Amino acid sequence: MKKDTPILNRISSPADLKELTSEEARRLCSELRGVILETVAANGGHLASNLGLVECTVALHRSFDSPRDSILFDVGHQAYTHKLLTGRRGCFDTLRKADGISGFVKRGENPHDKLSAGHSGTSLSAAVGMADAARLRGEDSYTIAIIGDGSFSNGMVYEALNHCSGRGLRLIIILNDNEMSISPNVGALSAYFSKIATSEGYFSFKHGAKRLFMGIPGIGKHLVGMARSIRDFIKRLLVKGNLFEDFGLDYLGPVDGNDLTKMESVLAEAKTKDTPCLVHIRTKKGLGYPPAEEHPDFYHATSPFDIEKGISRSAKENFSSVFGAALCAAAEKDSRICAITAAMTSGTGLTPFAERYPDRFFDVGIAEEHAVTLASGLAAGGMLPVFAVYSTFAQRICDQLLHDIALQKLPLVLALDRCGFVDGDGITHQGIFDIPLLSCIPQAEIWCAEAFSDIEPMLNHALSRNALTILRYPRGGQRDYDRSGLSDVGTLMHSAVEKAASHPVVITYGRLCDNALKAAEATGARVICLKRLHPLPMDELMPLLNGAASILFAEECQKRGGVGEALAAELHTRGIAIPMRILAVEESFGGQGSADDLMHAFGMDAEGLAALLRKEAIL
Amino acid sequence: MKKDTPILNRISSPADLKELTSEEARRLCSELRGVILETVAANGGHLASNLGLVECTVALHRSFDSPRDSILFDVGHQAYTHKLLTGRRGCFDTLRKADGISGFVKRGENPHDKLSAGHSGTSLSAAVGMADAARLRGEDSYTIAIIGDGSFSNGMVYEALNHCSGRGLRLIIILNDNEMSISPNVGALSAYFSKIATSEGYFSFKHGAKRLFMGIPGIGKHLVGMARSIRDFIKRLLVKGNLFEDFGLDYLGPVDGNDLTKMESVLAEAKTKDTPCLVHIRTKKGLGYPPAEEHPDFYHATSPFDIEKGISRSAKENFSSVFGAALCAAAEKDSRICAITAAMTSGTGLTPFAERYPDRFFDVGIAEEHAVTLASGLAAGGMLPVFAVYSTFAQRICDQLLHDIALQKLPLVLALDRCGFVDGDGITHQGIFDIPLLSCIPQAEIWCAEAFSDIEPMLNHALSRNALTILRYPRGGQRDYDRSGLSDVGTLMHSAVEKAASHPVVITYGRLCDNALKAAEATGARVICLKRLHPLPMDELMPLLNGAASILFAEECQKRGGVGEALAAELHTRGIAIPMRILAVEESFGGQGSADDLMHAFGMDAEGLAALLRKEAIL
Repeated sequence: MKKDTPILNRISSPADLKELTSEEARRLCSELRGVILETVAANGGHLASNLGLVECTVALHRSFDSPRDSILFDVGHQAYTHKLLTGRRGCFDTLRKADGISGFVKRGENPHDKLSAGHSGTSLSAAVGMADAARLRGEDSYTIAIIGDGSFSNGMVYEALNHCSGRGLRLIIILNDNEMSISPNVGALSAYFSKIATSEGYFSFKHGAKRLFMGIPGIGKHLVGMARSIRDFIKRLLVKGNLFEDFGLDYLGPVDGNDLTKMESVLAEAKTKDTPCLVHIRTKKGLGYPPAEEHPDFYHATSPFDIEKGISRSAKENFSSVFGAALCAAAEKDSRICAITAAMTSGTGLTPFAERYPDRFFDVGIAEEHAVTLASGLAAGGMLPVFAVYSTFAQRICDQLLHDIALQKLPLVLALDRCGFVDGDGITHQGIFDIPLLSCIPQAEIWCAEAFSDIEPMLNHALSRNALTILRYPRGGQRDYDRSGLSDVGTLMHSAVEKAASHPVVITYGRLCDNALKAAEATGARVICLKRLHPLPMDELMPLLNGAASILFAEECQKRGGVGEALAAELHTRGIAIPMRILAVEESFGGQGSADDLMHAFGMDAEGLAALLRKEAIL
Repeated sequence: MKKDTPILNRISSPADLKELTSEEARRLCSELRGVILETVAANGGHLASNLGLVECTVALHRSFDSPRDSILFDVGHQAYTHKLLTGRRGCFDTLRKADGISGFVKRGENPHDKLSAGHSGTSLSAAVGMADAARLRGEDSYTIAIIGDGSFSNGMVYEALNHCSGRGLRLIIILNDNEMSISPNVGALSAYFSKIATSEGYFSFKHGAKRLFMGIPGIGKHLVGMARSIRDFIKRLLVKGNLFEDFGLDYLGPVDGNDLTKMESVLAEAKTKDTPCLVHIRTKKGLGYPPAEEHPDFYHATSPFDIEKGISRSAKENFSSVFGAALCAAAEKDSRICAITAAMTSGTGLTPFAERYPDRFFDVGIAEEHAVTLASGLAAGGMLPVFAVYSTFAQRICDQLLHDIALQKLPLVLALDRCGFVDGDGITHQGIFDIPLLSCIPQAEIWCAEAFSDIEPMLNHALSRNALTILRYPRGGQRDYDRSGLSDVGTLMHSAVEKAASHPVVITYGRLCDNALKAAEATGARVICLKRLHPLPMDELMPLLNGAASILFAEECQKRGGVGEALAAELHTRGIAIPMRILAVEESFGGQGSADDLMHAFGMDAEGLAALLRKEAIL
């Protein structure tokens, strides 16, 4: 049963927020939490961070004038309140659905979403650019970036801090410190945030000095007075020693980000600054929904669930867990094997490895570039590194793979999770660029798993290769169908059923094999499912093209630079003139919806492939 | 006339260094400077930074035990002394030549070069990996990373600092602060280094407090004594406020890095630490060669020059300068145009723009990722950004171009300098991956200039497109030949001379057009020179393939994902069965030598192309 939202119903744009009393604004926060919880429980999405950021977002929209002022959310998954306050209340139930609103901030969706986001660490760089644009256009608007403590492990944030500091920009950085990125935070900065949050440095000095002075007979009281008079001097020095002050930023905080009054008051102070300032707030992930407060990592991103019962912790087998288990088995036998994640221990299936081999496990934070070059050092030191990362985030490591791994002839197994179309997260998260980006790397191999049983042999091959080897698999589980009719020759599988002398052949890889077999069944075609995508297994493939009247190549990948294009070029330069059609994602970022929705939209479901096969046969 | 090097002649490995007296070691430094200066004057190379780092490198090899201990140089261009001390004295005159030793540290060249380098900001990540490998293997060796202050503007350094801090690793970070990366440093950190280098914070407090205390009648002297007794307490707090201490590192310095005795003493202290420590040294770029001391930016990287006369500051026209002038002309007319560089103002031809439009000019430091996302914010704010960067460094920005520019449908002109083969710098600097990496970006266009006169129209087209547009050109000048026989149709040029009814066609782009025309002259072939590389100008190209008996496609680019492959795939799926051969760089990083050396090595010079055309004709 949906809860009433009488105050939220009155908010059609941020301007309406400013009419609310403080008490109404507080009640609004409670209503927002209800809508967010109901919607995520129904559609899936990001819960804990959105529940934590309700008051901060309300305070921002009461304090600033969006879209005149620009509010940018780093990663952009925590902007549900922002969406609800900026005219998207009516369509909020379409969150993450095909043709619905995005689960992330999305340029073009609404004038209040100035820029899209999805990957971490970009908001501050973009905010500097927007603030500079305002400067150049002579506007006095503010630019605000809201960025989690987890994103502070990403190097781009420092590049941007370094570039903006001390310049005459109306730029406010909100550091949302919730002691957690996706997995609990790692590294020096996490410890640093805790330290300054308790103001330990300054207060321990004050008390230490007071005790010291008071202990001196006769002049103690005098000295305490003295100490007070030099307190500001000391404080200035100490604050100068603040990391952010070192970067030339004004520092405000820490402030309780779940206290609306305190948030509005610190934002009022931030508005008085003429140079970039950093507002350090602390928020509680999952606030208002006890299960999420207790297990914020579990409620970071979730599938639909029952609000009363909470998320059921099923341990359903998926490609990530199968990979994690295979890696543990390999690490048991080979003590050189190290596993690396960029803040995605659980998402990449590495939790069992982290528990069993903590010494050889590295969570580097959201720092994909460092992850790869760290692997380069590990490999040069005689270890055998494996970096598990989502395909979409691997877009960040092209140079490190080229410069620090392949060029140095060092080994690395790159386990690419969430390849191809990805459920719900939309265009920023599709795994459709990794093949074009990575197959140009000299001496690299790229493999794609079709079934769970592919993972172990492919991983073992990759570990034995002593060079960059990429192992791809999609999010979730394997397709459930009868594989007994497929012949496996190691680098590919093919349907061995006898066909007419001249027949079409579908070539594909990964889970599209299922769709292709269904389409072939209906049209008398044959199917070849590649396992090694690069270099192409031409020796095994060529004999299988005998009798092929035409080739339909289908892939969940960008067409330019994809496997289909490589195969077409290979056939052309070999003088093989079999008519060929490539079905892939063309000059687009894919779309939003379930993976099945997207396959259908791109004509890659069984029906779409069958229709194409019939059409080609006519031609 | 070569100078005598009696002490250097006795050094065949770092072990020999330890036998030298301090006085001999100092004389050795002078000899090393002489060899470096002579060799760079003869071969070209990096001068100023190498002259500055002589004492530091000698001290490192006297203090540590390479190759048991690992010494990593960030970027790796400042390791000439390291090379001279590790058995490469005899072949040092082959520096940067084809088949000679690399101008950068290079894994495989020598056991003391543990990892290759060429791009900035990687050494610390790699060092953390090597130190972790030593930990896992139970070795007590040290890992040392030498990293310039310029590289500290790169985000990877922070990712690595964050990850290594406080852990039980024998890791020493040498911050070589020479107040300059390639162009003078920008940003907060540069200012920060100056501040701590003069120890202003601590000393100004000490003197301020002393004056304050002494001014109080009666108890002033007492208080000064007091102040002394709490000095350590204050100092601890202040040092705690040091940026590096915030990152959990031990901080030593600043130390005069050109003082051998002081260097050896600070390294001895660093060896006593069991957790990562940072040694801050200050060195003088160009030390020992007055012209380089005076103009270190000018002597950063140089072509061969006369030692007596110094470098002649000729203003020879090249693609970079032509681009810079065209951009200034466009910016004159359109106040939205902004120019961005990542510490390469001069190298990318942007000095005139920086001088004429300082408000719209952004040097972000060695921070390519930030540069692109900054551009995204500028564009979202209504500006028209242009980022000029070397092709090899564009390998770092794939995700930012996808996620922050193309996905958001924002405009950016990416001016790619040093495309194709690059003189001298070798495999880390070849511009042979940008096309595969960037042509998969939805809605992007890629253009390649063949002559200076291409730059202005291509730039103006790019500025008008309101989408990501990439403009490529090589290092240096245009080829000098008669272009009057070429017909220009905007997206391509072709040699219009009448040929036999059936003849071979060479398709290429950029400066290879010159080689192709010479080869065609000798073999009766026709030449098509593409200007728009992506998407392929098929409408203009198809009619020109009439009468083509075969196609030879040549490109200074990686074959997988290159333009040739895209064309072959396009022809194949269109059913055009003209035999085609692609000549490109296959599964390799190119090599070292002049661009002409490399064209010859890959068979892309006129002779090589002619030989292939004759061979194809026979087939």
